[in-house]
Amino acid sequence: MIIVLKPSATEEQIDHIVEKVTDLGLRTDVSKGSARTLIGVIGDEDKIRSAPLQAFPGVEKVMPILKPYKLASREMQEEPSVVDLGHGVKVGGGNLMMIAGPCAIESEERLRSIGESVKASGANVLRGGAYKPRTSPYSYQGMGEEGLKILQSVGNDLGMPTITEVMDPRQVHVVAEYADVLQIGARNMQNFNLLKEVGESKHPVLLKRGMSATVKDLLMSAEYVLAGGNKDVILCERGVCSFDKSTRNMLDLAMVPNVKETCHLPVVVDPSHATGRPELIPSMSLASVAAGADGVHIEVHDCPEEAMSDGPQALLPEQYAEVMEQMRKLAEVLGRSIPEPLVAV
Amino acid sequence: MIIVLKPSATEEQIDHIVEKVTDLGLRTDVSKGSARTLIGVIGDEDKIRSAPLQAFPGVEKVMPILKPYKLASREMQEEPSVVDLGHGVKVGGGNLMMIAGPCAIESEERLRSIGESVKASGANVLRGGAYKPRTSPYSYQGMGEEGLKILQSVGNDLGMPTITEVMDPRQVHVVAEYADVLQIGARNMQNFNLLKEVGESKHPVLLKRGMSATVKDLLMSAEYVLAGGNKDVILCERGVCSFDKSTRNMLDLAMVPNVKETCHLPVVVDPSHATGRPELIPSMSLASVAAGADGVHIEVHDCPEEAMSDGPQALLPEQYAEVMEQMRKLAEVLGRSIPEPLVAV
Amino acid sequence: MIIVLKPSATEEQIDHIVEKVTDLGLRTDVSKGSARTLIGVIGDEDKIRSAPLQAFPGVEKVMPILKPYKLASREMQEEPSVVDLGHGVKVGGGNLMMIAGPCAIESEERLRSIGESVKASGANVLRGGAYKPRTSPYSYQGMGEEGLKILQSVGNDLGMPTITEVMDPRQVHVVAEYADVLQIGARNMQNFNLLKEVGESKHPVLLKRGMSATVKDLLMSAEYVLAGGNKDVILCERGVCSFDKSTRNMLDLAMVPNVKETCHLPVVVDPSHATGRPELIPSMSLASVAAGADGVHIEVHDCPEEAMSDGPQALLPEQYAEVMEQMRKLAEVLGRSIPEPLVAV
Amino acid sequence: MIIVLKPSATEEQIDHIVEKVTDLGLRTDVSKGSARTLIGVIGDEDKIRSAPLQAFPGVEKVMPILKPYKLASREMQEEPSVVDLGHGVKVGGGNLMMIAGPCAIESEERLRSIGESVKASGANVLRGGAYKPRTSPYSYQGMGEEGLKILQSVGNDLGMPTITEVMDPRQVHVVAEYADVLQIGARNMQNFNLLKEVGESKHPVLLKRGMSATVKDLLMSAEYVLAGGNKDVILCERGVCSFDKSTRNMLDLAMVPNVKETCHLPVVVDPSHATGRPELIPSMSLASVAAGADGVHIEVHDCPEEAMSDGPQALLPEQYAEVMEQMRKLAEVLGRSIPEPLVAV
Repeated sequence: MIIVLKPSATEEQIDHIVEKVTDLGLRTDVSKGSARTLIGVIGDEDKIRSAPLQAFPGVEKVMPILKPYKLASREMQEEPSVVDLGHGVKVGGGNLMMIAGPCAIESEERLRSIGESVKASGANVLRGGAYKPRTSPYSYQGMGEEGLKILQSVGNDLGMPTITEVMDPRQVHVVAEYADVLQIGARNMQNFNLLKEVGESKHPVLLKRGMSATVKDLLMSAEYVLAGGNKDVILCERGVCSFDKSTRNMLDLAMVPNVKETCHLPVVVDPSHATGRPELIPSMSLASVAAGADGVHIEVHDCPEEAMSDGPQALLPEQYAEVMEQMRKLAEVLGRSIPEPLVAV
Repeated sequence: MIIVLKPSATEEQIDHIVEKVTDLGLRTDVSKGSARTLIGVIGDEDKIRSAPLQAFPGVEKVMPILKPYKLASREMQEEPSVVDLGHGVKVGGGNLMMIAGPCAIESEERLRSIGESVKASGANVLRGGAYKPRTSPYSYQGMGEEGLKILQSVGNDLGMPTITEVMDPRQVHVVAEYADVLQIGARNMQNFNLLKEVGESKHPVLLKRGMSATVKDLLMSAEYVLAGGNKDVILCERGVCSFDKSTRNMLDLAMVPNVKETCHLPVVVDPSHATGRPELIPSMSLASVAAGADGVHIEVHDCPEEAMSDGPQALLPEQYAEVMEQMRKLAEVLGRSIPEPLVAV
Repeated sequence: MIIVLKPSATEEQIDHIVEKVTDLGLRTDVSKGSARTLIGVIGDEDKIRSAPLQAFPGVEKVMPILKPYKLASREMQEEPSVVDLGHGVKVGGGNLMMIAGPCAIESEERLRSIGESVKASGANVLRGGAYKPRTSPYSYQGMGEEGLKILQSVGNDLGMPTITEVMDPRQVHVVAEYADVLQIGARNMQNFNLLKEVGESKHPVLLKRGMSATVKDLLMSAEYVLAGGNKDVILCERGVCSFDKSTRNMLDLAMVPNVKETCHLPVVVDPSHATGRPELIPSMSLASVAAGADGVHIEVHDCPEEAMSDGPQALLPEQYAEVMEQMRKLAEVLGRSIPEPLVAV
Repeated sequence: MIIVLKPSATEEQIDHIVEKVTDLGLRTDVSKGSARTLIGVIGDEDKIRSAPLQAFPGVEKVMPILKPYKLASREMQEEPSVVDLGHGVKVGGGNLMMIAGPCAIESEERLRSIGESVKASGANVLRGGAYKPRTSPYSYQGMGEEGLKILQSVGNDLGMPTITEVMDPRQVHVVAEYADVLQIGARNMQNFNLLKEVGESKHPVLLKRGMSATVKDLLMSAEYVLAGGNKDVILCERGVCSFDKSTRNMLDLAMVPNVKETCHLPVVVDPSHATGRPELIPSMSLASVAAGADGVHIEVHDCPEEAMSDGPQALLPEQYAEVMEQMRKLAEVLGRSIPEPLVAV
């Protein structure tokens, strides 16, 4: 940490800061330059991170040197994490997590039919929402526990691990009873009590990036789950807010290599929510694989015009099959692999 | 609602859409222009809002005409809402809510001392955090229920209504037991289950705008609380995310008249969290009053360098007294009033 | 400047960097911490600013300590600049510049009529566009030199300095011949050749902030004009891009005290272009004065539905008179003054 | 175009609007719904686009139906444009434009050496800046015409078309004398006089997206060039402004299929300026090809630590060779082709 002093800082102020830092068990290196005096802080930066040094008289700014996340960082673990999702499916370290399914679970028949078709195309994780975070209180809010039961039943029959969103700390227990992977939605990325709750679960957690979350913010939220004792965290890019409304959100694909530089957790991409436009999803799915993502999350519905939620952004099963086929070829060239389809496309 | 068709839309597709709209109990007005065919939907737009018309074959885009919020809108209630906060303090309709206090409750002595000084300057609502939403799991997380007890005791002794943040649906009950106003933080603005929970409370709710929430998003979240039966909602601008990091967030002051155009709820402004820089808070407080805000929320601490949270952005009690004095003069000129200080400044 | 090295940096890499810095005539202070080695650079930071230190092997990041602008900074000149606009009108140091007029000059009669009415309300600078930067090549592009002649004639008759936009280095000469103040539009804030050209002019320059310009970017563009020898620069906030489209741009009012902290140039605010909504302009004008702005820029048109450009955001002359009256009262309370109206309102 | 009226709109106001629209040679379709009256405008929407209908009494909002660009749209030309760059190189319709070279031209030797190496890797267009848009007036501003001569000489010797930035309408003539493709930088995307000037040139124009430009803004700027008579426009994504500063800009890759949906012009991607971080460029280059880009623009320097501009973001020639090799494999799988390297890698 470097403390930059104002040109007007007095000796007394400098001494006061040095004393405070020393009290915290750290050493200082005072360097008087031509234009500014700097105080370097040597030792465990964490001890001092929460001290409000910025509020000290004479301080112009405080510049941290080290990253504020630890358990999520490559410095803690150099090797990429591999997360076991159940039913023999893994993500990370070259294993791709191909998530597909409807936005909301609507009925057992529909979920089974969609599940069978995406499985046939090579999807290895089944998604479906039972608790839906809707902007409007008047929109469809999901089937709840009944939906979870359907998800479990279809997942078991197809031999696919399942993923569904949990929105409330009080839901963690029931969701974990039926689903394999707990999804934290973008709007809850900084719902810290929910993060603590899933941090105590034994289930893998897929953490979606918030609409205005920096990469650092996302890693700090992952740190909450890791610090709670749950090592099985998967990050998910799903677009961030921007000034251009021609897509629903702005997909920040550079986030994939950016996160991987500094963090060992797997990263998947959700082009469905990022773009909100089905005609853009195939190219963005290919781009996600090329960017190095550990998986792709795509919403699929067999009759978008009857969907209870987000129908307009869903791919049809046959469109999904085609994208999967192309992603598979790309992954092969890049030395990774996507499960083979059950039937030739 | 206007449905714009693609140039390539067929008669069959048009008929299919008209049929679907009619099935929902609405009428249509098909207008064939030179470049596009439009289908106007006549009747209760809400019936059709959740239907995924965008997913229908032949549709280019769907343009809603009406606002998706109802209870929050001026069309529902033309007069500005006035919310009773307890201890004879009201906000809205010309009544200003001057919130002051420390970021976190640290001890009874400190809160009492800060509370006495801000009351002397004319503050009429006492704030203090007991549950703190912190970006890092390693930062100070607040005193919890013990802090709430201190807040209640100091508020009662000073005769000031109190406000504190509630982060979790499970905390609503305990927070409501001790505090007068429930604050929903920016990070929880779309924590819909929390909104539903405070919607069932009898306590006024101060709802902070999320970092990437549009004005419409904020009003939709207010709608959740109102739809739950709680009419006492106060909105709060506290800065949104932007590309310029020279302030913590970007204060969107135009949001004040913008919201008031369309919504009857009171709007207060929090320049402390918006700017994160104490030297900018006085001018932004004055600007908030001039912009028509129904209140100003300012963090005050008597020793920022010892604060457990956000010390660097707090004003000193004497700085607060001075800003209050200036805001009072401004409010007078504009025909509103801020409580007189207990002692001359 | 602080150079932060990677944990893996070798002695050889450190020596190489020290050698390079020393070659540039500066000294170094190498500090080996527990987690990172830092190299402090002591001496004139400018010598090294353009050296691509980030590209050196072993470097993790480079953190500048000093601001990259000099002539614009408070460190260069502590007193606020006062700019003489002609006709006895000044801006800065307590003098307010109240700019009003139509978006585009449309005819002599219309400009004269609008000019007379805004002068009567106390405006002291007349605006009118002759060269219009339009997003579409098919939109009205302005009257050009003929418009400039009208502006000069009306300004002279009314005894008001005039301001108009210059879009092209080739226009600087002709615009300076007729107008008193040269306006650089938001879209040209980083048109560096245009900045150099107006830097050689003797006319005051009003520099509008770009849609995605940080405060630092704006000050760097001001620095181009100042470095060219023109000391008469006025900055203008007119809203920046954001994710919320309910206003045309997002007005960053905190930018006013933020700039003033670090820079001695006058700052005016343009709520017309910032909001694009006439019903929000009065409150934002008041808020601008309260925030400490050195002036307010408002578009006024006597028949918005006939305006050639931006009609929908113009105030009517009578609306302008009313806002001016309120701003005048506010300014008085704050110890500044706005010219009296010629006739009682 | 749909005109939505306020609930309070009177018959008189409706008649006034209908009259105005009719005067402009268009027809109206007035539709009185339960909550709002709508006026549909039938006929050539362009006639009315610049009329300030929003300013008419009784109007709540105006919603355009058609896109404001014409020449750039797929409706004007369904087939993708193919642009001839000289030396037998084309872009668009499956032809990829692989641009490489240093940020700034520094000397003939250096440019030749870099040019030879990138050509050997398969690059087919040589870049190099002679006029540099620099944020600071104190930074290196480029070699000017001398640099252009070097670029021409090296390009000719290597048989590669060249591209360089033109910043000023007065430079178009000289740049066109020496270079094959004229680049308009992001900061000048809305420098409309410059767009008009290159619109009259016979040289292809590469138009970079501005930092806060929506896709629509970019297409409107392209429309300026096309409307000037120059059909050879290539669009370039290079990242936009965002709230996350961990990359220089945010690369909006979804813009590639998004533009292609609506526009026939070729689109290339510049991951160098978008990310500003060399370690992210390889993955983003691959993702660009996968997203369907018609080319990739990469800065290459043989000694980044001596570069006069943007050294830290340049790839080394050997890194470039490797990325090209991977992009070539990807392109092959996707049915497009990148020139073979001159020597095996």
